Amino acid sequence: MVEIKSPEYVLALDFGGTKLAAAVVDTKTGKTTALTRKSTPVRQGAEATLNAMIEVGWEALEGCGIKDQITRVGISFGGPVNKDRTTVLHSHHVQEWDGIVLTERITNTFEIPAFMENDANAVAFGEWYFGAGERVENMIYIQVSTGVGAGLILDHQLYRGEALAGEFGHITVLPNGPTCVCGKRGCVESLCSGWAIARDGKEAFKHAAPSSPLWRLSEGKEENIKASTVIEAYREGDLNAKTILEQSFTSLGIGIANIICLFDPEIVVVGGGIARAKDVMMEFLEPALDNYVHYLFKNRYRLKFSELDGQETLLGAALLARLG
Amino acid sequence: MVEIKSPEYVLALDFGGTKLAAAVVDTKTGKTTALTRKSTPVRQGAEATLNAMIEVGWEALEGCGIKDQITRVGISFGGPVNKDRTTVLHSHHVQEWDGIVLTERITNTFEIPAFMENDANAVAFGEWYFGAGERVENMIYIQVSTGVGAGLILDHQLYRGEALAGEFGHITVLPNGPTCVCGKRGCVESLCSGWAIARDGKEAFKHAAPSSPLWRLSEGKEENIKASTVIEAYREGDLNAKTILEQSFTSLGIGIANIICLFDPEIVVVGGGIARAKDVMMEFLEPALDNYVHYLFKNRYRLKFSELDGQETLLGAALLARLG
Repeated sequence: MVEIKSPEYVLALDFGGTKLAAAVVDTKTGKTTALTRKSTPVRQGAEATLNAMIEVGWEALEGCGIKDQITRVGISFGGPVNKDRTTVLHSHHVQEWDGIVLTERITNTFEIPAFMENDANAVAFGEWYFGAGERVENMIYIQVSTGVGAGLILDHQLYRGEALAGEFGHITVLPNGPTCVCGKRGCVESLCSGWAIARDGKEAFKHAAPSSPLWRLSEGKEENIKASTVIEAYREGDLNAKTILEQSFTSLGIGIANIICLFDPEIVVVGGGIARAKDVMMEFLEPALDNYVHYLFKNRYRLKFSELDGQETLLGAALLARLG
Repeated sequence: MVEIKSPEYVLALDFGGTKLAAAVVDTKTGKTTALTRKSTPVRQGAEATLNAMIEVGWEALEGCGIKDQITRVGISFGGPVNKDRTTVLHSHHVQEWDGIVLTERITNTFEIPAFMENDANAVAFGEWYFGAGERVENMIYIQVSTGVGAGLILDHQLYRGEALAGEFGHITVLPNGPTCVCGKRGCVESLCSGWAIARDGKEAFKHAAPSSPLWRLSEGKEENIKASTVIEAYREGDLNAKTILEQSFTSLGIGIANIICLFDPEIVVVGGGIARAKDVMMEFLEPALDNYVHYLFKNRYRLKFSELDGQETLLGAALLARLG
């Protein structure tokens, strides 16, 4: 099994759809220092984003106090990357990324070798190595945030398939369900992602009574409704919010039950922004798993929530650079 | 990558739900000799089945002419086996198998080491190594016969999870769909397996006109209807049969599209009795894949049909014994 026994410091860069982050990571202990953040300049395109990240990266390097001990850069990219993990295939958030050989650009800038990974893979690996994944043989990490994805640790290794494995958000769980951003219908992401819950919240708002929690929490404005508004409204007894979340998290449960049937993992970890409301999620997810997990698999897996609180992407990118 | 370079002869035993088979396999070339078959004595239980298989095994050994060159036994078992692959967990077909340490019994009988594998894994490995799988890095084998299952070759190796991975037949593709043998609803198996197509054929028969192909092919008797009757009726223009097969193979397509999203394989191989009618299957499977495969994965995978014509289970069991 993978085990890192000596300290080695890696500069980790996280290219997210809304945030850029950099930090220096001790890959032996998982300790991060000099964490620096900036908003992604989404409208200015790929080159501006890359320049902004380089600034953030230099800040982390200068601030860490051990700049000369840093031997690699680990990059997490928020979108699919090619099979040899040098080149961005696509960004759903920022224009003009397609085809940029990002590892080369970063290697040239910082003059140390750079290694890239897709963000779902980085977060899964970080959580597996330092968090809820417990470094077991087989773990599936499910990310439920603005979008939905998965990272697959199989036989103690990150499984990538031909490059794009783990697109859990786009498995169909409700044929003829809502239309997804990908153009298909009834994908997991079209039912339980942040954007899907917000969409259903806005739809429910149109018929909501002014006395309802949903109306009150959005201050009577549809555009104020986010996934978190729907979750909060449910906590305050909003019945429309309940209907929405029941469908969302039941669908998530069908997807996770399918994952369990196919992969027979020891641990499934659920993380991401939406999973922070884990009490609410579990109210619906637990009965869904009861209904949809095949009897042979009951009591064979453990469902856990992310334990790393936002650092898992940087940690995973650093670890994968170390092991790359 | 796995590659077998020297000849080594393995006695392969296939414990199927309806048939027992044995042969001697040259694991270098895939050539089988002394193939022997017998019906599974389903009603007489596990011990009678084991004794019948031992007879068949001796026949193959005595008949092969190279008995003294055989160094191992490879067993394929039609049901789940435990993680260290020594012990049967369950048989859906024959009573009293649960907990039998089959490798020990076979080793003691033939006095050479025995290795066991679940049948879906054996068939997948055989097809990957000697058939349509082309020994690519990542291949998924989908078995569509009386039941539905899958075998997963990931990173050039058989992936087993914690023992039971690949239960493709029991992923949910149509919540609130028909009831499955496992007690859930809308599993792939409840929609496109041999038993599911036969069930729908029998239901359609109740309302079928005596002039319809379904009626004629079943000679007016509901109990004569099998999956093959429905497929044949469709070929002869039966509209009820068309409706059944459209739903069956569209559901199969949703399942395969989900597999592609999760595993990003280079090749998906479809095999098993129902897949022998590949022209009919493709009429419905192809448009389903068009609709349900996520756009990033289109043109990234190849769909193929089994090429080994019934020998793949024995071949796979022999190979896995050699590599075990």
